[in-house]
Amino acid sequence: MVVELINTGSELMLGRVLNTHQQWLCRQLADVGYEVSRQVAVPDAGPPIQQAMREALARADLVIATGGLGPTSDDLTRALIAELLGRTLREDPSVLAHIKEFFEIRNRPMPERTRVQALVPEGANVLPNPHGTAPGLAIKLEPNPFRGDGAASWLVLLPGPPRELRPMFIDSVVPLLRRELPPPTRFICSTLRTAGLGESIIQERIAGPLAPLTAAGLELGYCARPGQVDVRVAARGPEAERLVHQAEQIVHTQLYTHIFANGDEELAAVIVRQLTARKKTLALAESCTGGLMAHELTNVPGASAVLLAGVVAYSNGAKQKLLGVSGATLEQHGAVSEPVARQMAEGVKARLGADHAVSVTGIAGPGGGTAAKPVGTVFIGVAGRV
Amino acid sequence: MVVELINTGSELMLGRVLNTHQQWLCRQLADVGYEVSRQVAVPDAGPPIQQAMREALARADLVIATGGLGPTSDDLTRALIAELLGRTLREDPSVLAHIKEFFEIRNRPMPERTRVQALVPEGANVLPNPHGTAPGLAIKLEPNPFRGDGAASWLVLLPGPPRELRPMFIDSVVPLLRRELPPPTRFICSTLRTAGLGESIIQERIAGPLAPLTAAGLELGYCARPGQVDVRVAARGPEAERLVHQAEQIVHTQLYTHIFANGDEELAAVIVRQLTARKKTLALAESCTGGLMAHELTNVPGASAVLLAGVVAYSNGAKQKLLGVSGATLEQHGAVSEPVARQMAEGVKARLGADHAVSVTGIAGPGGGTAAKPVGTVFIGVAGRV
Repeated sequence: MVVELINTGSELMLGRVLNTHQQWLCRQLADVGYEVSRQVAVPDAGPPIQQAMREALARADLVIATGGLGPTSDDLTRALIAELLGRTLREDPSVLAHIKEFFEIRNRPMPERTRVQALVPEGANVLPNPHGTAPGLAIKLEPNPFRGDGAASWLVLLPGPPRELRPMFIDSVVPLLRRELPPPTRFICSTLRTAGLGESIIQERIAGPLAPLTAAGLELGYCARPGQVDVRVAARGPEAERLVHQAEQIVHTQLYTHIFANGDEELAAVIVRQLTARKKTLALAESCTGGLMAHELTNVPGASAVLLAGVVAYSNGAKQKLLGVSGATLEQHGAVSEPVARQMAEGVKARLGADHAVSVTGIAGPGGGTAAKPVGTVFIGVAGRV
Repeated sequence: MVVELINTGSELMLGRVLNTHQQWLCRQLADVGYEVSRQVAVPDAGPPIQQAMREALARADLVIATGGLGPTSDDLTRALIAELLGRTLREDPSVLAHIKEFFEIRNRPMPERTRVQALVPEGANVLPNPHGTAPGLAIKLEPNPFRGDGAASWLVLLPGPPRELRPMFIDSVVPLLRRELPPPTRFICSTLRTAGLGESIIQERIAGPLAPLTAAGLELGYCARPGQVDVRVAARGPEAERLVHQAEQIVHTQLYTHIFANGDEELAAVIVRQLTARKKTLALAESCTGGLMAHELTNVPGASAVLLAGVVAYSNGAKQKLLGVSGATLEQHGAVSEPVARQMAEGVKARLGADHAVSVTGIAGPGGGTAAKPVGTVFIGVAGRV
C-alpha cells in the first residue's frame, strides 16, 4: 500500500508557517497501520499543484492533500482537481446549507465568496466540516488514469486549518480508510504515556526485558515530549496482538506508577476524568506557568465540573491580593520559594473552598535568574488530601 | 531560478518528529531572494532518496537535501549521491582530522564508525561543521546529466541536526549561493497581520483596490489562523519595491484598525510591547478561554512588567469570590452575559489596581449551549481607557 501526502500553501514555501500537517497526518496514519512513503509541499499555483497530484497519483493507492479549499482567490485545489480529473464541479445543496447555517448561527452575513466552497467535483464524497465552511472531499479514481496498472486509488482533500483538518481526519477519513482501504497486514500499535522519567532511564528499564519480543518483530519507539515520554509498542502480522499485549504487560511491570494513560489520553484529561469520578474540585495558583495549567485543563471538555478557578498571579501584589500570600513571607523568602508555593496553594484552596489546589512558582527565564535561584528553579505546592 | 528542498528521515514519515527544516530553510532562502518551489520528504532508504534526487535535479538549479550524513547504518545519503552521480568517495584528510579533534577535545574515544563521515564524493566542496562531525557537501553538476537542457545545477547536502545545519547554512551555504547562484530578480515580501475580520471579508475589501497591482505582477496571499488572518503581498523584479509598498498602503487604508503587525510579531507580543512603552498594566478575567489569554501573554518575554494577574474564573463562585461579580447579576443574566463580562473586567481591574483589564465569558462548547445562548456566544469586557 503506497500512501503519499501533498501539502499546498505558498506560505509554507516562503517559510512563513510551520508545516505541522506532515507530522500530524503521518503520525495518525502510522497509528492505524499506514506508512507514508512521500510527502511533498508545493505553492498555491496551478502547475505545481497539478504536477504534484499527477506524480503522486501515478504511484499511490492513497493520496491525501491539504489546503487550498478555502474561499479566497489563492484557494485553487477544488478547481484544479476537477480539471485534472475531468470532472464537473456542481454546487452541493447540503454543503451550501451548512455554509449558510455556519454564518447564521454566528449572526454574520454570509460573504458571497464563501459559496464557492459548496462546489463539489462529481462523484466525490463530501466530508463534513463542523468547525468551518470548507468540506473535505474523498474521490475514488476507479480506474486511476495516472497509474500504468489501472488500479484504483483514493484521493482525499482536506482543508488547511488544523482545527478543521484534525477532527475531519479522525471522524471521517479514518473510518473511510478502514472500510475502503484496510491496511494490508494486521497492525497493532499501543502507546503507553508516562510522566516523571526521562527517556534514557525508561529505555534502560524496558529495553532489556522487551528484547525477546523485539527479536520476534516487536517495534519499540520512544517519543519524549515536554513533561512526558510516550512508549510505543507495535507489531504486524498474525502474531501482532500477542506481541503487543505481552509488551504492554512488561512495560506496566517496569514503569507502573509512571504510566498515566494507555492510548492518546492527555495528562490533563486523566486529571479531569479522575476528579469528576470522585466528585472533587480543583483550584490553581500559577506564577511562572502563566495560565498554562489552567489552559490545558480547560481544554478538556467537562473541565468546568472540577476546575473552580485558576489564578495567574504574576506580580507580588496579585499573590497578596488574590491568594492571601503574606507580604512578610514574600520579602523574607522571595516569590520563588517553598513557603510562597505553600501559601499560594493553601490560599487559593481556602478562598474557593476547593477540595484540592496546586500552585507553581518559579523562574521560567530567559531573564530573572540568580546564582541562588537559577533559571529553571520551580516550587510546586499541593494542598488538600493527595 | 528553480530551488527544491529534500528532507530525508524515516522518523519524519512516521510522524515521530516535526520537520522544522522545511520552514527554517524556506524562510532563510526567501530572505536572501530565493523561492523554494517544491519540498519533499522521503524515508531513509535508497530507492526513494535516489528517486527524489533525480526528479529534483531534473528540474532545479539548486537542490538542498538534509539528513542522512551521520555515522549510523540508516545514514545513506553520502553513498547514494556518489552512486547516483557516478563519483568515487575518497577520504578527505582535513575532514578526518576535524572528526578526530572533535572527539579529542571532548576526551572521548572516536568510534570507528564515525570515520565514514570523512568520505567525500570527488569534486565536492566540503562545508565545515563546527558543531558536529558530519561535514556538509556542495557539488556543482556541470553539466547536470539529469536536465534536458544540460545546464549546470548545484546540489547541497546538509546534516540533519538543526544546531549543525543552521550555522552551516548561514556561514557556508549563503555565501556560496551569493557567489555562485546570485538571485535572478529582486524579491520583496511583506506580511500584514490582521485581527477581527474573516478572510472572505478581507478579500472583499482589498482584492478590488489591489487589482491594478496584481495585474502588474503583485502576488497576494491570505493565511487564516485562529483569531487572525495574515495578508501577504510579494513581488519580484525591478518594480518589486514599488508594487509592495503601494500594496501595503492600500491594505492599510482598507483594513486600518484591523492590522496589528507588519512582519512576524504575534498579537500578544504587540500588546506587551505597547503596554510596556506606555508603562501601563493589565489584568485579565477569563472564563471560557480558560487561561489561554494569560498563557499567550506570559509566553512573551517581558510580560511580567505589564501583566499583573489573570484570573480563570470558571465557576460562578470564583467569579464572585475572586472578581466581586454580584450574585444577583449572575442569577438574573447568567454567567455568559454583558453585565457579567462588565463586572468581571471592572472587578479584576479594581482588585489589582491595574490600568486596563479584559474579561471574557462565553460558551466554548461542546456542551452548555442553549437556544438563547448557543455554543459560540461570547461576551468580552474591557475596563480602563482604551
